[in-house]
Amino acid sequence: MLQSRLFTKTLRESPRDEAAANARLLIRAGFIHKEMAGVYSFLPLGFRVLKKIEGIIREEMNALGANEVLLTALQDSSVWETSGRWDDQVIDVWFKTPLKSGSLLGLANTHEEAITSLMRQYVSSYRDLPFSVYQIQTKFRNELRARSGLLRGREFLMKDLYSFHLNTDDLDSFYERVAAAYAKIFSRLDIGDITYQTFASGGAFSKYSHEFQTATAAGEDLIHVCVDCRQAVNEEIKADLPACPACGGSNFRRVTAIEVGNIFKLGTRFSEAANLTVTDTEGKNHFVIMGSYGLGLSRLMGALVETHHDDHGIIWPVAAAPFSVHLLSLGDDSATVAAAGSLYQKLAAAGVTALFDDRLNVSVGAKLTDADLIGLPYRLIVSQKSGDRIEFKERASAQSSLLTVSEVVGRLVS
Amino acid sequence: MLQSRLFTKTLRESPRDEAAANARLLIRAGFIHKEMAGVYSFLPLGFRVLKKIEGIIREEMNALGANEVLLTALQDSSVWETSGRWDDQVIDVWFKTPLKSGSLLGLANTHEEAITSLMRQYVSSYRDLPFSVYQIQTKFRNELRARSGLLRGREFLMKDLYSFHLNTDDLDSFYERVAAAYAKIFSRLDIGDITYQTFASGGAFSKYSHEFQTATAAGEDLIHVCVDCRQAVNEEIKADLPACPACGGSNFRRVTAIEVGNIFKLGTRFSEAANLTVTDTEGKNHFVIMGSYGLGLSRLMGALVETHHDDHGIIWPVAAAPFSVHLLSLGDDSATVAAAGSLYQKLAAAGVTALFDDRLNVSVGAKLTDADLIGLPYRLIVSQKSGDRIEFKERASAQSSLLTVSEVVGRLVS
Repeated sequence: MLQSRLFTKTLRESPRDEAAANARLLIRAGFIHKEMAGVYSFLPLGFRVLKKIEGIIREEMNALGANEVLLTALQDSSVWETSGRWDDQVIDVWFKTPLKSGSLLGLANTHEEAITSLMRQYVSSYRDLPFSVYQIQTKFRNELRARSGLLRGREFLMKDLYSFHLNTDDLDSFYERVAAAYAKIFSRLDIGDITYQTFASGGAFSKYSHEFQTATAAGEDLIHVCVDCRQAVNEEIKADLPACPACGGSNFRRVTAIEVGNIFKLGTRFSEAANLTVTDTEGKNHFVIMGSYGLGLSRLMGALVETHHDDHGIIWPVAAAPFSVHLLSLGDDSATVAAAGSLYQKLAAAGVTALFDDRLNVSVGAKLTDADLIGLPYRLIVSQKSGDRIEFKERASAQSSLLTVSEVVGRLVS
Repeated sequence: MLQSRLFTKTLRESPRDEAAANARLLIRAGFIHKEMAGVYSFLPLGFRVLKKIEGIIREEMNALGANEVLLTALQDSSVWETSGRWDDQVIDVWFKTPLKSGSLLGLANTHEEAITSLMRQYVSSYRDLPFSVYQIQTKFRNELRARSGLLRGREFLMKDLYSFHLNTDDLDSFYERVAAAYAKIFSRLDIGDITYQTFASGGAFSKYSHEFQTATAAGEDLIHVCVDCRQAVNEEIKADLPACPACGGSNFRRVTAIEVGNIFKLGTRFSEAANLTVTDTEGKNHFVIMGSYGLGLSRLMGALVETHHDDHGIIWPVAAAPFSVHLLSLGDDSATVAAAGSLYQKLAAAGVTALFDDRLNVSVGAKLTDADLIGLPYRLIVSQKSGDRIEFKERASAQSSLLTVSEVVGRLVS
């Protein structure tokens, strides 16, 4: 993409009303725009990051065999009254809004009730099980305070997956497959080594649930990471668990972290409320056993910035970067402009996505500062100074090297 | 996809609470689920249709050079008060919902105010113009009545595009390019010949705006199609326009139709309200000239069904079909199952998407009825009766033919 065609510009100053690094950097670099606390629009660069994260998550969900759907934000109270969660004291972050007719609708912050109710239409026999469905959809939470940028939003993108089983063994094995899929997603996003599967309270049906916590000083949670096995325990239940429930070890590191995902064994909590049953081979009725698995897309984007930046700006992992390459034309003379344009074409032909800073009348310093702030993984500079060589530098590294055009393409394609 | 892995099932009966053909067929065939009047979830088949429509629209918007963004549903009143549209008498379909702090938020039904306000951060000079941005996003309308299925929703998917110009000439030429892009989209979706660019009232800045109206008995609008030039005039302004404003002709056909898109020259209506200005080469300030261009994705899906069905079910145009092919294995004997499975692999290898009805213990009649109802463009039957030939039939045609496997693949790939 030509940077001259991008409507956003980097801002010199950090926004004064944002404390979180993710919001400060993403706003300054033009990835997001703050509509109000906890509500952010995604501008072209930010939108591309979201789509990259979405693509990775979709691949891993499809690999589980899950069907993709799109449920609704607007929710009828009747569906939620059966589970008891329509009550504002039970879910204290409801947004509710009146229909013209006067009845009150809710804006969904999760979809267990909706998906369970819907399934009564399609599920009646053990032969219909097991299966799983997911969606990538906008959720709403009426947070009293929202001041961590993308880490705690009032409107945010989530992937939510729901699974349906005949028995707990089947749920248990699917649950482990989801945990493995999540680990793969975090690894692809380059936060695998700082994201911990964490024991958390489990509710009525299951002793524990699991959260996936990414270590960052900006996190709102405190977890205890077992030094021996890398599993962690949330502070909230640490008192009940002196030893690591995974390996029995007793050495822990205390770490602040942000919850980027969670997985729950719901059991029959929602199928009983909605009366979702199947008949077995002998015609006997059973409540369907369910699991629920969340992952925050916009929160992941915030967590990536919190864990991948320096004093100069963002340092995107390749898999989430809006473009792989920032190509800078430093010099408005015709030879430099032509050489940069030619390299831009060659990158496109090789399938390498690039943001091409083709802006004229912009100083060298401003272009370099912008590139660091925006934080694409690879920076290429074309200038008179380097002649027919290209200056190649990784954003994460201080070292640069002078390469020929074919060496540059070779490095980026391999 | 294996049909045995699809959680939805076709329903024998049409839902009693739906009058519109699009809702009746889409619900019966398992594409959508009704949450409440005007609010529908998209199930796996319906989700795939949405994605197909979205892909076509995105291609044509990107071809215009527009940047994709994602704005927010939650809206702060302050942004809308400047234009006067926060008032429930001006926009009578607002959903509003209180924040914990007590202040009222709106759920966006359009985004002129939000996008104009946002642009003050990025636009200041004539050099920043022209440009355009679009999004594909969920909109909310608090409709008193919603009874046309996907044609009039309370929650629905829209593409909205906004353009920003220095002068009206530039707006005019971009407006024509958008009209041409829309025509291309409708043509790709196989409703080009029944969708009419229609003169409608223009508001303060422009004499007329244009709607794109798809002829269908289910439509809520009445238009007058000029027999000479195919341009149409909305009933609402027909009295003011005895002659066709495009060609001067005076022969019209009255047609009921559904508005699937619209394009507006906004002029300075919103830039004045938000004080969005640019300086010209002489340092003088000008309000930015804007255009706004809508297209309903879920409504298009409804309109496709209204215009593409028969007594047996839906007849999807290839470009919007969830899969190109419905492959039916008629017979549970091992030879038939193996031959169908092998053909399914060959189709996948050739890049042809297929729904493979691999269900065992389902009658021939039920499989054929389901295939007609779901309405994929091509039906392939593997059975003992046809030996090593495949029965090939287009959904839209009554004729079938017996082809070899390589002939089948050749037809579908070409």
